[in-house]
Amino acid sequence: MVQLINELFGRAFDNPWLRRGDDGAVLPAPGPGERLVLATDAHVVSPLFFPGGDIGSLAVHGTVNDLAVMGARPLYLAASFILEEGFPLADLQRIVKSMAAAALAAGVPVVTGDTKVVERGKGDGVFITTTGLGALAAGRDLSGANACPGDAVIVSGTMGDHGMAIMARRENLAFESDIVSDSAALHGLAALALEAAPGLRLLRDPTRGGLAATLNEIAQQSGVGMVLDEAAIPVSPQVAAACEFLGLDPLHIANEGKLVAVCPAAEAAGLVAALRAHPLGLRAACIGEVSADAHRFVQMKTVLGGRRMVDWLAGEQLPRIC
Amino acid sequence: MVQLINELFGRAFDNPWLRRGDDGAVLPAPGPGERLVLATDAHVVSPLFFPGGDIGSLAVHGTVNDLAVMGARPLYLAASFILEEGFPLADLQRIVKSMAAAALAAGVPVVTGDTKVVERGKGDGVFITTTGLGALAAGRDLSGANACPGDAVIVSGTMGDHGMAIMARRENLAFESDIVSDSAALHGLAALALEAAPGLRLLRDPTRGGLAATLNEIAQQSGVGMVLDEAAIPVSPQVAAACEFLGLDPLHIANEGKLVAVCPAAEAAGLVAALRAHPLGLRAACIGEVSADAHRFVQMKTVLGGRRMVDWLAGEQLPRIC
Repeated sequence: MVQLINELFGRAFDNPWLRRGDDGAVLPAPGPGERLVLATDAHVVSPLFFPGGDIGSLAVHGTVNDLAVMGARPLYLAASFILEEGFPLADLQRIVKSMAAAALAAGVPVVTGDTKVVERGKGDGVFITTTGLGALAAGRDLSGANACPGDAVIVSGTMGDHGMAIMARRENLAFESDIVSDSAALHGLAALALEAAPGLRLLRDPTRGGLAATLNEIAQQSGVGMVLDEAAIPVSPQVAAACEFLGLDPLHIANEGKLVAVCPAAEAAGLVAALRAHPLGLRAACIGEVSADAHRFVQMKTVLGGRRMVDWLAGEQLPRIC
Repeated sequence: MVQLINELFGRAFDNPWLRRGDDGAVLPAPGPGERLVLATDAHVVSPLFFPGGDIGSLAVHGTVNDLAVMGARPLYLAASFILEEGFPLADLQRIVKSMAAAALAAGVPVVTGDTKVVERGKGDGVFITTTGLGALAAGRDLSGANACPGDAVIVSGTMGDHGMAIMARRENLAFESDIVSDSAALHGLAALALEAAPGLRLLRDPTRGGLAATLNEIAQQSGVGMVLDEAAIPVSPQVAAACEFLGLDPLHIANEGKLVAVCPAAEAAGLVAALRAHPLGLRAACIGEVSADAHRFVQMKTVLGGRRMVDWLAGEQLPRIC
């Protein structure tokens, strides 16, 4: 079994580092003046396959995006698999192939890995932890702590697609049209953003907890408030309808292929235009601004003309979304 | 719950990288001429606590050792936790504290991490994947492919302690004295070995599958055979007795604090002496030599004067040993 798996991995991810068969991968140092970025993510999504992706492609995108939002150039991935005994080899093959295709498309090879098997009933099919190593240009400093009053808050597209795709599949909800996860590698889009807005304060990918959690985190880290414009926040009609049906707020639903950007107001229009020129940013929009607020509240002007708080959720609305 | 966990992790592993609260850690580039080494390991050991350690300390030692055997200086760790719902917080606290203590003792900070929770019955307490980043000096090239006929095969101490400690605890076997895991960070010992034997071909840590699997892997990678001397292989009396009782071979039992080294014969005595001067290498010994063998067989001269093959095991003798 272990041999089969190693052959499967070796063939799918094939590269000079894996072929060496050593305990780790030896990699060149980054370019002159560059620093390193290290990020890790466990992926436990359920179901393993969903419209728009699977745990394999998600494990690549999730970690590549953690590097991308730091402003880093993703270089390499390490992958660790925890398999439940009896997990169908055909499913594993499908996942590994999808993961290898996502890594190839992103240009980020899986250079080292590990596999463990646990007894039936002690896992759930497969869990994948991916760790990414990236290079960060000299002087670049994106951080959740950088937002300033007056800055613009921008998103790269519609909110809630990934989480709602998972939930619809999990609950066997039949909507008129399939909701498809937005799972995608965002380092190309992030590079565009860095170029278009030299004063860019920060990037984030609004995954678990959705846009609401991400913006509240930024408000906490930067010691600021935010005022959003509900009418400006892009949500697809299918996701809006599904949310209404289920009594959920799209701002709390996870995304896996969207950026949140904060930049000086003067750079906002240029940044939105640049994002919209990229296939992954077609529906980019400026959705609000950073405010001076000792309470660090994230508020929203509603379409009805009122104001409401955009809160953290107390619990996890959707477990195992990624 | 997630907040509690983040506070627990933040306090235990406290360092400037974690305090930033970003999606990844920004780290300085390695020194001039140095390359990088990346290694990852999932830890699923059962039971979580055992004589000589727990899953937390093991997760640090396992990955630090993967870097050490590449000849690298371990610099940073990333940690990802998959928790089963309902796992006692007191147990998690104990594990995280032990992990933080092991990281501090090894001088390798945990700079970034992630936590996911799965439903009861979909995990087994806690699984921990650690990924390590190290720096490799210019010109250093340790690899399983480097062994040459005539080279000496050296181990840094007794074989089988970790696996037998786990098995004894799991099966509730009562031996006269507790068998204690050898789980330890080996980068200090590895650095000594590199200094004592400038011609060092390779280092390995004989974990899953024990010494037998590790030597067979090296034989395969290097295209050589090996001839071992059974009488020279150090095994503690307790492990030897337990193995006899259970019908197991100590050469197939996992270690978590031992090095296998292959070096030119002329450097063997100096290397053994250097290892013996370190607290983790007191029982170091030269146990055999590399031979020219197109069949890549690992053979052993037995204490009775015969010869036997040292085989890979077909299956995994002891699942979830690390």
